[in-house]
Amino acid sequence: MVYNFAAGPSVLPQEALLKAQAELLDYAGSGMSVMELTHRGKEFTAIIEHAEETLRELMHIPDNYQVLFLQGGASTQFTMVPLNLAVGKKAYYVESGSFGKKAFTEAVKLSHFIPFEPISLGSTESQNYNHLVQFDASEIDSDAAYVHVTLNNTIEGTTIYELPDTNGVPLVGDMSSDILAFDYEVEKFALIYAGAQKNIGPAGMTVVIVRNDLLTDKEILSSMMDYRILAKNHSLYNTPPTFGIYMSDLVFEWVKAQGGVKAMAEKNLKKSALLYEYIDSTEFYKSPVINKNERSLCNIPFSCGDKVKDDKFIEQADRAGFKNIKGHRSVGGMRASLYNAFPFEGVEALVDFMKKFEEENDL
Amino acid sequence: MVYNFAAGPSVLPQEALLKAQAELLDYAGSGMSVMELTHRGKEFTAIIEHAEETLRELMHIPDNYQVLFLQGGASTQFTMVPLNLAVGKKAYYVESGSFGKKAFTEAVKLSHFIPFEPISLGSTESQNYNHLVQFDASEIDSDAAYVHVTLNNTIEGTTIYELPDTNGVPLVGDMSSDILAFDYEVEKFALIYAGAQKNIGPAGMTVVIVRNDLLTDKEILSSMMDYRILAKNHSLYNTPPTFGIYMSDLVFEWVKAQGGVKAMAEKNLKKSALLYEYIDSTEFYKSPVINKNERSLCNIPFSCGDKVKDDKFIEQADRAGFKNIKGHRSVGGMRASLYNAFPFEGVEALVDFMKKFEEENDL
Repeated sequence: MVYNFAAGPSVLPQEALLKAQAELLDYAGSGMSVMELTHRGKEFTAIIEHAEETLRELMHIPDNYQVLFLQGGASTQFTMVPLNLAVGKKAYYVESGSFGKKAFTEAVKLSHFIPFEPISLGSTESQNYNHLVQFDASEIDSDAAYVHVTLNNTIEGTTIYELPDTNGVPLVGDMSSDILAFDYEVEKFALIYAGAQKNIGPAGMTVVIVRNDLLTDKEILSSMMDYRILAKNHSLYNTPPTFGIYMSDLVFEWVKAQGGVKAMAEKNLKKSALLYEYIDSTEFYKSPVINKNERSLCNIPFSCGDKVKDDKFIEQADRAGFKNIKGHRSVGGMRASLYNAFPFEGVEALVDFMKKFEEENDL
Repeated sequence: MVYNFAAGPSVLPQEALLKAQAELLDYAGSGMSVMELTHRGKEFTAIIEHAEETLRELMHIPDNYQVLFLQGGASTQFTMVPLNLAVGKKAYYVESGSFGKKAFTEAVKLSHFIPFEPISLGSTESQNYNHLVQFDASEIDSDAAYVHVTLNNTIEGTTIYELPDTNGVPLVGDMSSDILAFDYEVEKFALIYAGAQKNIGPAGMTVVIVRNDLLTDKEILSSMMDYRILAKNHSLYNTPPTFGIYMSDLVFEWVKAQGGVKAMAEKNLKKSALLYEYIDSTEFYKSPVINKNERSLCNIPFSCGDKVKDDKFIEQADRAGFKNIKGHRSVGGMRASLYNAFPFEGVEALVDFMKKFEEENDL
């Protein structure tokens, strides 16, 4: 028995894995593996349609939004978002973590080739992103293409729970690490994107949810980066990551069986609260996040405040079955990623282990 | 028992699927599914390194070539190739099939934004791509960035067996449908790319093999499209399609166990010869490909020359377990895709079925 605290790819629901295993060589009596199904056939058509339908239901996605299943991860969206939405306009970025900075950096790079103006609304990099950027809506030109935010900072362990005032400018959200884990209102966004490998399914699939009025008919430099073309082809402009979409569909069904996104969010808040309460109750462990109301429900960095002790913790934890608990090198210490499929018992077991480690090492 | 003639995604080796099934919930005693492994951990590092090593061995890839495992399919390479290689130069395209045309069309689209000159060396579209384009090396400016060819035309059923004279200009090959199925010499190419979903593994992974001297340090508009950045990060610039790479590794091992690429090519030539010989022996079935020496070893279109009979054939074949044998709508009729994992017995069974169908319908 192990508990997998990886930040992504990460733990998946056992129910989904067991179903995939059972039908891996023969999907629904077809005599073929899901991996062998043509993406234009009736079996896969049913899978992708069911996946979209279930995700729409789970996230209450309105009809005037497209749901796309793409490739390339959030990193590809860093380019696709401005390429499709920002040409000739201003685009604002909030840099509250490493991925927010990457999104902005990629936009700046693109702006060397395509005319638009990426603008940073602030960065907390000099404080190692230990809190979220605050900005005033009056700083935002109301003609801008969008304001881009990272909803959960996977590396630094912060979450935006209340969406910012953008002065009426469309909001674009990188929801990679808390999609289906926190109950955001899709209507508040013009575009949402998320890599699958945390709360959705295996790595290699990206969900994009985009409001129809953002799909312009301007030419985009690559068909594979053109939301309009991808939407028109219902994510089948080229061969999609079929197995990833199938696994995601199994996970969507699992989330539904768990009571939906609101129920998942409640469970996640309980899981993270258990760990935060323990961290707050002792001087031995510290959270690098300075504002309690910004602490992530999905990624919880902590440290003994001492590299030698942290290394010892990580090594002993690994041997005890607490896998991938080492923090990102830019933050150091430990990180417990508690995505949807991570069980409550795993957090209880971790807290017990932390207590024991504290007793043995608080000299 | 079914035989899956799909053009991609398509049949995979049973041995690879069985191994994946056996260890789907516990990879190598890790207590985790391959899908749950972090891409930075020791287990996945071993998988991706082994996959690269085995592919290098199978294709005899020299040390001065990078091997990249990417996302986005061949369609994304249609943009990445000129973006990385052609800026400020001429780039030639050979349009002997639908995908060759797509590659050229995407290059033309990109050239509206990035300065380079895509030039067609000819097209056989007006003859429904029933033969390969012939061109003279003297047409090619020796300063050009590259000549792009599609090695196997999946839809139309032709293959380039002898590589063209390019007047010393680097050759770029889309090898999506015959990588590992025909024994090309990698040294003859400057860059090779291939979507995985035919001879490598599940859809959602793309192999790119690129010679080091083609990686310039010019800025590319997106990091995710920059071969140099992707190579520098050993395909881990962002989260790669981990499960797809794992499955590909299992397939590479299987190809090795079959005797390698030369042995696969021999088997493929035998499989396709059996079907071509039968088609040639009767007036009832026709191949749309006019030159016998250009007929594909992977994708074999054929027809009864009559839509009513073709539809009847497809329907009866499907009921008899010959799946996905309907031809592409642009060619019509039937298509038997006989990739590496397709068994010889399946071709024998198909020929038997075709004989029976002919007897019953040759009125």
